Amino acid sequence: MGFVSVLGFAHQLISQRVQAGETVVDATLGNGVDALFLAKLVGSRGSVYGFDIQQQALDQTKMRLEKELPDVSSCVHMSLFSHALMETVVPQDRHGKVAAVTFNLGYLPGADPSTITKQESTIPALEAALRLLRKGGIVTIVLYSGHDGGSEEAAAVENWAQQLPLAAFQVLSYQFKNTSTHAPYLLALEKR
Amino acid sequence: MGFVSVLGFAHQLISQRVQAGETVVDATLGNGVDALFLAKLVGSRGSVYGFDIQQQALDQTKMRLEKELPDVSSCVHMSLFSHALMETVVPQDRHGKVAAVTFNLGYLPGADPSTITKQESTIPALEAALRLLRKGGIVTIVLYSGHDGGSEEAAAVENWAQQLPLAAFQVLSYQFKNTSTHAPYLLALEKR
Repeated sequence: MGFVSVLGFAHQLISQRVQAGETVVDATLGNGVDALFLAKLVGSRGSVYGFDIQQQALDQTKMRLEKELPDVSSCVHMSLFSHALMETVVPQDRHGKVAAVTFNLGYLPGADPSTITKQESTIPALEAALRLLRKGGIVTIVLYSGHDGGSEEAAAVENWAQQLPLAAFQVLSYQFKNTSTHAPYLLALEKR
Repeated sequence: MGFVSVLGFAHQLISQRVQAGETVVDATLGNGVDALFLAKLVGSRGSVYGFDIQQQALDQTKMRLEKELPDVSSCVHMSLFSHALMETVVPQDRHGKVAAVTFNLGYLPGADPSTITKQESTIPALEAALRLLRKGGIVTIVLYSGHDGGSEEAAAVENWAQQLPLAAFQVLSYQFKNTSTHAPYLLALEKR
Protein backbone atom coordinates (compact mmCIF):
# COMPACT_ATOMS: atom_id res chain seq x y z
CA MET A 1 0.00 0.00 0.00
CA GLY A 2 2.93 2.36 0.56
CA PHE A 3 3.40 4.82 3.39
CA VAL A 4 1.27 7.98 3.37
CA SER A 5 3.07 10.88 1.64
CA VAL A 6 4.54 13.78 3.60
CA LEU A 7 1.70 16.12 2.57
CA GLY A 8 -0.90 13.39 3.11
CA PHE A 9 0.38 12.74 6.62
CA ALA A 10 0.35 16.48 7.40
CA HIS A 11 -3.29 16.60 6.29
CA GLN A 12 -4.15 13.55 8.44
CA LEU A 13 -2.67 15.19 11.54
CA ILE A 14 -4.60 18.41 10.80
CA SER A 15 -7.90 16.59 10.12
CA GLN A 16 -7.64 14.82 13.49
CA ARG A 17 -7.34 18.17 15.30
CA VAL A 18 -9.42 20.80 13.45
CA GLN A 19 -13.20 21.13 13.86
CA ALA A 20 -15.66 22.67 11.39
CA GLY A 21 -16.17 26.36 12.18
CA GLU A 22 -12.63 26.95 13.44
CA THR A 23 -10.04 29.51 12.29
CA VAL A 24 -6.92 28.28 10.48
CA VAL A 25 -4.00 29.84 8.58
CA ASP A 26 -2.22 28.89 5.35
CA ALA A 27 1.09 30.72 5.79
CA THR A 28 2.31 29.95 2.24
CA LEU A 29 -0.58 29.85 -0.25
CA GLY A 30 1.56 28.65 -3.17
CA ASN A 31 -0.65 26.80 -5.61
CA GLY A 32 -3.54 26.66 -3.14
CA VAL A 33 -3.55 22.96 -2.25
CA ASP A 34 -3.42 23.55 1.51
CA ALA A 35 -5.92 26.43 1.37
CA LEU A 36 -8.43 24.20 -0.44
CA PHE A 37 -7.90 21.39 2.08
CA LEU A 38 -8.30 23.81 5.02
CA ALA A 39 -11.39 25.50 3.54
CA LYS A 40 -13.10 22.10 3.16
CA LEU A 41 -12.17 21.24 6.73
CA VAL A 42 -13.46 24.37 8.49
CA GLY A 43 -16.43 24.83 6.14
CA SER A 44 -18.54 27.92 5.57
CA ARG A 45 -18.74 28.79 9.28
CA GLY A 46 -14.94 28.69 9.61
CA SER A 47 -12.19 31.03 8.42
CA VAL A 48 -8.98 30.46 6.49
CA TYR A 49 -6.39 33.27 6.50
CA GLY A 50 -3.93 32.81 3.65
CA PHE A 51 -0.63 34.56 2.97
CA ASP A 52 1.82 34.80 0.11
CA ILE A 53 4.17 37.49 -1.14
CA GLN A 54 3.48 36.62 -4.80
CA GLN A 55 0.29 37.77 -6.56
CA GLN A 56 0.56 34.66 -8.76
CA ALA A 57 0.00 32.47 -5.68
CA LEU A 58 -3.13 34.39 -4.68
CA ASP A 59 -4.46 34.14 -8.23
CA GLN A 60 -3.79 30.37 -8.43
CA THR A 61 -5.40 29.78 -5.04
CA LYS A 62 -8.46 31.88 -5.97
CA MET A 63 -8.92 29.92 -9.21
CA ARG A 64 -8.55 26.58 -7.42
CA LEU A 65 -11.06 27.53 -4.73
CA GLU A 66 -13.63 28.93 -7.18
CA LYS A 67 -13.41 25.81 -9.29
CA GLU A 68 -13.40 23.17 -6.56
CA LEU A 69 -15.22 24.79 -3.68
CA PRO A 70 -17.46 27.66 -4.94
CA ASP A 71 -19.76 27.50 -1.91
CA VAL A 72 -17.24 28.10 0.83
CA SER A 73 -14.45 29.92 -1.01
CA SER A 74 -15.78 33.12 0.58
CA CYS A 75 -14.43 31.98 3.96
CA VAL A 76 -10.85 32.25 2.63
CA HIS A 77 -9.21 35.64 3.28
CA MET A 78 -6.04 36.09 1.21
CA SER A 79 -3.33 38.66 1.93
CA LEU A 80 -0.40 39.70 -0.25
CA PHE A 81 1.73 39.96 2.89
CA SER A 82 4.66 38.08 4.35
CA HIS A 83 3.48 35.36 6.72
CA ALA A 84 5.64 37.06 9.36
CA LEU A 85 2.81 39.65 9.55
CA MET A 86 0.03 37.09 10.12
CA GLU A 87 -0.82 38.48 13.55
CA THR A 88 -1.77 41.84 12.03
CA VAL A 89 -4.31 40.17 9.71
CA VAL A 90 -5.87 37.43 11.85
CA PRO A 91 -8.48 39.25 13.99
CA GLN A 92 -7.44 39.95 17.57
CA ASP A 93 -10.33 37.89 18.99
CA ARG A 94 -8.97 34.81 17.17
CA HIS A 95 -5.49 35.06 18.68
CA GLY A 96 -4.86 31.99 20.81
CA LYS A 97 -7.76 30.23 19.09
CA VAL A 98 -6.27 29.22 15.75
CA ALA A 99 -6.52 25.44 15.24
CA ALA A 100 -3.87 24.94 12.52
CA VAL A 101 -1.20 26.79 10.55
CA THR A 102 0.38 25.25 7.45
CA PHE A 103 3.80 26.13 6.01
CA ASN A 104 5.09 24.84 2.71
CA LEU A 105 8.60 26.22 2.41
CA GLY A 106 10.75 26.76 -0.67
CA TYR A 107 9.52 28.40 -3.87
CA LEU A 108 6.30 28.50 -5.85
CA PRO A 109 6.38 25.76 -8.53
CA GLY A 110 6.27 27.35 -11.97
CA ALA A 111 7.25 30.81 -10.70
CA ASP A 112 10.63 32.52 -10.28
CA PRO A 113 12.76 30.00 -8.30
CA SER A 114 14.80 32.88 -6.84
CA THR A 115 11.75 34.01 -4.87
CA ILE A 116 12.05 31.65 -1.88
CA THR A 117 11.07 31.57 1.75
CA LYS A 118 14.04 32.47 3.96
CA GLN A 119 14.79 31.77 7.57
CA GLU A 120 14.89 35.53 8.34
CA SER A 121 11.12 35.70 7.81
CA THR A 122 10.23 32.02 8.25
CA ILE A 123 11.35 31.81 11.90
CA PRO A 124 9.44 34.97 12.94
CA ALA A 125 6.41 33.62 11.06
CA LEU A 126 6.67 30.31 12.92
CA GLU A 127 6.92 32.18 16.22
CA ALA A 128 3.80 34.15 15.28
CA ALA A 129 2.01 30.91 14.34
CA LEU A 130 2.75 29.40 17.76
CA ARG A 131 1.35 32.51 19.48
CA LEU A 132 -1.86 32.34 17.43
CA LEU A 133 -2.39 28.63 18.14
CA ARG A 134 -4.96 27.28 20.59
CA LYS A 135 -4.15 24.45 22.98
CA GLY A 136 -4.14 21.22 20.97
CA GLY A 137 -3.61 23.21 17.76
CA ILE A 138 -1.01 22.21 15.17
CA VAL A 139 1.60 23.83 12.94
CA THR A 140 2.77 21.74 9.97
CA ILE A 141 5.96 22.62 8.08
CA VAL A 142 6.91 20.90 4.82
CA LEU A 143 10.63 21.48 4.31
CA TYR A 144 12.54 21.34 1.03
CA SER A 145 16.28 21.50 0.73
CA GLY A 146 16.79 20.96 -3.00
CA HIS A 147 16.92 24.63 -4.08
CA ASP A 148 19.61 27.25 -3.37
CA GLY A 149 19.23 28.32 0.25
CA GLY A 150 16.83 25.46 0.99
CA SER A 151 19.09 23.33 3.13
CA GLU A 152 20.15 26.36 5.20
CA GLU A 153 16.51 27.25 5.82
CA ALA A 154 15.60 23.64 6.69
CA ALA A 155 18.52 23.40 9.14
CA ALA A 156 17.55 26.70 10.77
CA VAL A 157 13.92 25.63 11.16
CA GLU A 158 14.89 22.22 12.52
CA ASN A 159 17.32 23.78 15.00
CA TRP A 160 14.63 26.24 16.12
CA ALA A 161 12.02 23.47 16.53
CA GLN A 162 14.36 21.21 18.52
CA GLN A 163 14.74 23.93 21.12
CA LEU A 164 11.03 24.42 21.77
CA PRO A 165 10.21 23.58 25.41
CA LEU A 166 8.71 20.10 25.68
CA ALA A 167 6.31 21.35 28.37
CA ALA A 168 4.68 23.66 25.81
CA PHE A 169 5.05 21.86 22.45
CA GLN A 170 5.52 18.41 20.96
CA VAL A 171 7.71 18.35 17.83
CA LEU A 172 7.41 15.40 15.45
CA SER A 173 9.27 14.65 12.22
CA TYR A 174 8.00 12.37 9.44
CA GLN A 175 10.60 11.73 6.79
CA PHE A 176 11.43 9.27 4.02
CA LYS A 177 15.00 8.12 4.39
CA ASN A 178 16.11 6.33 1.23
CA THR A 179 14.89 8.94 -1.25
CA SER A 180 17.05 11.74 -2.66
CA THR A 181 18.59 13.88 0.05
CA HIS A 182 16.42 16.72 -1.19
CA ALA A 183 13.05 15.03 -0.77
CA PRO A 184 10.60 17.14 1.28
CA TYR A 185 9.91 16.17 4.87
CA LEU A 186 7.51 17.18 7.60
CA LEU A 187 7.88 18.81 10.98
CA ALA A 188 4.64 18.99 12.99
CA LEU A 189 4.28 21.03 16.20
CA GLU A 190 1.40 20.56 18.63
CA LYS A 191 0.70 23.10 21.37
CA ARG A 192 0.07 21.40 24.72
CA MET B 1 -4.51 15.08 22.00
CA GLY B 2 -0.77 14.67 21.51
CA PHE B 3 0.95 12.83 18.69
CA VAL B 4 0.81 9.03 18.68
CA SER B 5 3.83 7.51 20.45
CA VAL B 6 6.64 5.84 18.53
CA LEU B 7 5.45 2.35 19.53
CA GLY B 8 1.80 3.29 18.92
CA PHE B 9 2.63 4.54 15.43
CA ALA B 10 4.59 1.35 14.66
CA HIS B 11 1.53 -0.69 15.71
CA GLN B 12 -0.76 1.48 13.54
CA LEU B 13 1.43 0.85 10.48
CA ILE B 14 1.47 -2.88 11.20
CA SER B 15 -2.31 -3.08 11.80
CA GLN B 16 -2.94 -1.44 8.44
CA ARG B 17 -0.88 -4.12 6.65
CA VAL B 18 -1.30 -7.46 8.47
CA GLN B 19 -4.33 -9.72 8.01
CA ALA B 20 -5.66 -12.33 10.44
CA GLY B 21 -4.11 -15.73 9.68
CA GLU B 22 -0.78 -14.35 8.48
CA THR B 23 2.74 -15.16 9.68
CA VAL B 24 4.71 -12.48 11.56
CA VAL B 25 7.98 -12.26 13.52
CA ASP B 26 8.90 -10.53 16.77
CA ALA B 27 12.70 -10.33 16.43
CA THR B 28 13.26 -9.06 19.99
CA LEU B 29 10.70 -10.48 22.41
CA GLY B 30 11.84 -8.34 25.36
CA ASN B 31 8.92 -7.91 27.75
CA GLY B 32 6.44 -9.34 25.23
CA VAL B 33 4.49 -6.20 24.30
CA ASP B 34 5.00 -6.63 20.55
CA ALA B 35 4.39 -10.41 20.68
CA LEU B 36 1.04 -9.83 22.41
CA PHE B 37 0.07 -7.17 19.88
CA LEU B 38 1.07 -9.44 16.97
CA ALA B 39 -0.71 -12.49 18.40
CA LYS B 40 -3.96 -10.51 18.70
CA LEU B 41 -3.55 -9.28 15.14
CA VAL B 42 -2.95 -12.62 13.39
CA GLY B 43 -5.29 -14.59 15.68
CA SER B 44 -5.43 -18.33 16.24
CA ARG B 45 -5.08 -19.14 12.52
CA GLY B 46 -1.91 -17.07 12.27
CA SER B 47 1.64 -17.60 13.53
CA VAL B 48 4.04 -15.44 15.52
CA TYR B 49 7.70 -16.46 15.58
CA GLY B 50 9.50 -14.78 18.48
CA PHE B 51 13.23 -14.51 19.24
CA ASP B 52 15.36 -13.43 22.16
CA ILE B 53 18.76 -14.45 23.49
CA GLN B 54 17.63 -14.11 27.12
CA GLN B 55 15.48 -16.76 28.84
CA GLN B 56 14.02 -13.96 31.01
CA ALA B 57 12.47 -12.40 27.89
CA LEU B 58 10.85 -15.68 26.85
CA ASP B 59 9.50 -16.17 30.38
CA GLN B 60 8.08 -12.63 30.53
CA THR B 61 6.48 -12.98 27.12
CA LYS B 62 4.96 -16.36 28.02
CA MET B 63 3.47 -14.94 31.22
CA ARG B 64 2.04 -11.93 29.41
CA LEU B 65 0.49 -14.07 26.67
CA GLU B 66 -1.02 -16.62 29.08
CA LYS B 67 -2.53 -13.84 31.16
CA GLU B 68 -3.85 -11.60 28.41
CA LEU B 69 -4.48 -13.94 25.53
CA PRO B 70 -4.87 -17.56 26.74
CA ASP B 71 -6.88 -18.61 23.67
CA VAL B 72 -4.34 -17.79 21.00
CA SER B 73 -1.06 -17.86 22.90
CA SER B 74 -0.46 -21.27 21.34
CA CYS B 75 0.14 -19.60 17.99
CA VAL B 76 3.30 -17.95 19.37
CA HIS B 77 6.50 -19.94 18.78
CA MET B 78 9.38 -18.67 20.90
CA SER B 79 13.05 -19.41 20.26
CA LEU B 80 16.04 -18.74 22.51
CA PHE B 81 18.07 -17.84 19.40
CA SER B 82 19.59 -14.70 18.00
CA HIS B 83 17.20 -12.99 15.59
CA ALA B 84 19.99 -13.31 13.00
CA LEU B 85 18.94 -16.98 12.77
CA MET B 86 15.25 -16.30 12.13
CA GLU B 87 15.32 -17.90 8.69
CA THR B 88 16.25 -21.26 10.22
CA VAL B 89 13.17 -21.18 12.47
CA VAL B 90 10.45 -19.68 10.28
CA PRO B 91 9.23 -22.60 8.11
CA GLN B 92 10.54 -22.63 4.54
CA ASP B 93 7.03 -22.41 3.07
CA ARG B 94 6.52 -19.08 4.89
CA HIS B 95 9.66 -17.47 3.44
CA GLY B 96 8.63 -14.51 1.30
CA LYS B 97 5.18 -14.56 2.94
CA VAL B 98 5.85 -12.92 6.31
CA ALA B 99 3.65 -9.85 6.78
CA ALA B 100 5.56 -8.02 9.54
CA VAL B 101 8.77 -8.20 11.58
CA THR B 102 9.24 -6.06 14.70
CA PHE B 103 12.58 -5.01 16.20
CA ASN B 104 12.92 -3.23 19.53
CA LEU B 105 16.64 -2.56 19.90
CA GLY B 106 18.70 -1.88 23.01
CA TYR B 107 18.46 -3.90 26.21
CA LEU B 108 15.69 -5.67 28.13
CA PRO B 109 14.24 -3.30 30.77
CA GLY B 110 14.92 -4.71 34.22
CA ALA B 111 17.61 -7.13 33.02
CA ASP B 112 21.37 -6.79 32.68
CA PRO B 113 21.90 -3.54 30.69
CA SER B 114 25.18 -4.88 29.33
CA THR B 115 23.25 -7.48 27.29
CA ILE B 116 22.34 -5.33 24.32
CA THR B 117 21.55 -5.77 20.67
CA LYS B 118 24.57 -4.96 18.53
CA GLN B 119 24.93 -3.98 14.90
CA GLU B 120 27.01 -7.10 14.17
CA SER B 121 23.89 -9.24 14.62
CA THR B 122 21.19 -6.58 14.15
CA ILE B 123 22.11 -5.81 10.52
CA PRO B 124 22.18 -9.51 9.47
CA ALA B 125 18.85 -9.97 11.28
CA LEU B 126 17.36 -7.01 9.40
CA GLU B 127 18.62 -8.46 6.11
CA ALA B 128 17.00 -11.79 7.01
CA ALA B 129 13.75 -10.00 7.88
CA LEU B 130 13.66 -8.30 4.48
CA ARG B 131 14.15 -11.67 2.75
CA LEU B 132 11.29 -13.22 4.75
CA LEU B 133 8.90 -10.36 3.99
CA ARG B 134 6.06 -10.57 1.47
CA LYS B 135 5.29 -7.71 -0.92
CA GLY B 136 3.54 -4.98 1.08
CA GLY B 137 4.97 -6.39 4.31
CA ILE B 138 6.60 -4.19 6.92
CA VAL B 139 9.64 -4.19 9.22
CA THR B 140 9.46 -1.81 12.20
CA ILE B 141 12.60 -0.88 14.15
CA VAL B 142 12.43 1.06 17.42
CA LEU B 143 15.88 2.53 18.00
CA TYR B 144 17.35 3.66 21.31
CA SER B 145 20.62 5.50 21.68
CA GLY B 146 20.68 6.23 25.41
CA HIS B 147 22.72 3.22 26.52
CA ASP B 148 26.39 2.43 25.88
CA GLY B 149 26.70 1.31 22.26
CA GLY B 150 23.16 2.46 21.46
CA SER B 151 24.01 5.47 19.35
CA GLU B 152 26.55 3.46 17.31
CA GLU B 153 23.95 0.76 16.64
CA ALA B 154 21.28 3.36 15.74
CA ALA B 155 23.67 5.11 13.34
CA ALA B 156 24.63 1.80 11.70
CA VAL B 157 20.98 0.80 11.25
CA GLU B 158 20.04 4.20 9.87
CA ASN B 159 22.98 4.16 7.46
CA TRP B 160 22.01 0.66 6.30
CA ALA B 161 18.35 1.63 5.83
CA GLN B 162 19.17 4.79 3.87
CA GLN B 163 21.00 2.70 1.29
CA LEU B 164 18.12 0.32 0.58
CA PRO B 165 17.06 0.63 -3.07
CA LEU B 166 13.94 2.79 -3.40
CA ALA B 167 12.63 0.47 -6.11
CA ALA B 168 12.42 -2.37 -3.58
CA PHE B 169 11.72 -0.67 -0.23
CA GLN B 170 10.26 2.51 1.23
CA VAL B 171 12.02 3.71 4.41
CA LEU B 172 10.16 6.04 6.76
CA SER B 173 11.30 7.65 10.01
CA TYR B 174 8.95 8.90 12.76
CA GLN B 175 10.77 10.81 15.45
CA PHE B 176 10.12 13.32 18.23
CA LYS B 177 12.57 16.18 17.93
CA ASN B 178 12.50 18.28 21.11
CA THR B 179 12.79 15.40 23.57
CA SER B 180 16.07 14.17 25.04
CA THR B 181 18.56 13.20 22.35
CA HIS B 182 18.18 9.62 23.59
CA ALA B 183 14.43 9.27 23.08
CA PRO B 184 13.52 6.20 21.00
CA TYR B 185 12.49 6.67 17.39
CA LEU B 186 11.03 4.56 14.62
CA LEU B 187 12.27 3.37 11.26
CA ALA B 188 9.67 1.52 9.20
CA LEU B 189 10.49 -0.40 5.98
CA GLU B 190 7.86 -1.51 3.51
CA LYS B 191 8.65 -4.01 0.77
CA ARG B 192 7.28 -2.86 -2.58
